[in-house]
Amino acid sequence: MPIDPHSDIEVTAFEWVPDFARTYVRDFRVRWALEEAGRPYRTRLISAVDRPQDYFAEQPFGQVPAYRDTQVQLFESGAIVLHIGSSCEALLPADIVGRTRATAWLVAALNSVEPMLMELATVDLFAAGEPWAALRRPSLVEAIDKRLGHMSDTLGTRDFLEGRFTAGDLIMAAVLRGLDATDLLARHANLAAYQRRCLDRPAYAAAIAAQLADFRADAPIAA
Amino acid sequence: MPIDPHSDIEVTAFEWVPDFARTYVRDFRVRWALEEAGRPYRTRLISAVDRPQDYFAEQPFGQVPAYRDTQVQLFESGAIVLHIGSSCEALLPADIVGRTRATAWLVAALNSVEPMLMELATVDLFAAGEPWAALRRPSLVEAIDKRLGHMSDTLGTRDFLEGRFTAGDLIMAAVLRGLDATDLLARHANLAAYQRRCLDRPAYAAAIAAQLADFRADAPIAA
Repeated sequence: MPIDPHSDIEVTAFEWVPDFARTYVRDFRVRWALEEAGRPYRTRLISAVDRPQDYFAEQPFGQVPAYRDTQVQLFESGAIVLHIGSSCEALLPADIVGRTRATAWLVAALNSVEPMLMELATVDLFAAGEPWAALRRPSLVEAIDKRLGHMSDTLGTRDFLEGRFTAGDLIMAAVLRGLDATDLLARHANLAAYQRRCLDRPAYAAAIAAQLADFRADAPIAA
Repeated sequence: MPIDPHSDIEVTAFEWVPDFARTYVRDFRVRWALEEAGRPYRTRLISAVDRPQDYFAEQPFGQVPAYRDTQVQLFESGAIVLHIGSSCEALLPADIVGRTRATAWLVAALNSVEPMLMELATVDLFAAGEPWAALRRPSLVEAIDKRLGHMSDTLGTRDFLEGRFTAGDLIMAAVLRGLDATDLLARHANLAAYQRRCLDRPAYAAAIAAQLADFRADAPIAA
């Protein structure tokens, strides 16, 4: 595992989150990209309960991850993965067609797929039990299923969205984990197999293990 | 206006949409980027009512815009704007810090701001009148206001998110138009002034005029 406290690359992560959020906090996306690229990194752990006020200067919304290396200081996991990919052909092909198509799928995951899955997380998790949540769910599930159907048609029998694994697949497979507690992905067999193919990569397992290893055992006491 | 039927750059757009959607269909984002870059383009108009089946091969979800030039065929307006910016310093600075920071804001707009505004569009427009929509609205508005507050703090007294206008501002200002029918942006004076500063650019006005000029007057009859 490329965790190296002396690395020039720093990724922020949370020191503790509740069980339901473990393996889902978005630093796993950046850790995964760094594992694919074979680049060691160090982590800086911050509190999710009391986000340090000066952290907002690095990450406007107080989210994780933030990222820094010898050249740049960045936020937004999608943008960080693009930056890592810009010097790693395993993530972003060097030819313009391969690079821009991978970027298109990365953006599609973040802007045409994930917004619906964020809303589903609100309905099923953060607002579960509120009267409106149960009423909203059927039309939302219908919209998600329709969008997955289009993606399933596009994927067809290909192993990856553009033939070979790229940063677009990394972010898409990560985003689709927002459906883990549902049967929505399983309804589209080729899409479910595609996501499995992405998550079976050793770099993904290493990233998840590294995130889990960073969590402290007990919840911190809020100030 | 750089509309040129012989251009090598093609942008798809809808031949007609209802009044409420005019100026909001996302091809305006790509048209705006092309205007900033001073690049002529041609449009290909498709039906929003009966989306051509073969169009899904170009745009997996049947959305507009899709884009092609002599080198690439792309979808997702965010990815298309990044591609245009990759050879246009007016949109993406050549230095790695400027380029990656602009990309971070572009991704933030698409993945940390727009998902909430998409949900607001569902609540206020597409599901208006449904009992759950009114119940959901207060907590959603609170979440949006909080996020805008963080962005307002980050922007401070700067003219643009990173000092000078970039593709990140273009997409952020475009995304914030999702609040046009509300007073949510006006609650944050510096953010409202920032968006106005972006939308006052001649390239924005040209893009909007070009989208409006492409709509046919009457609704097509659905097959």
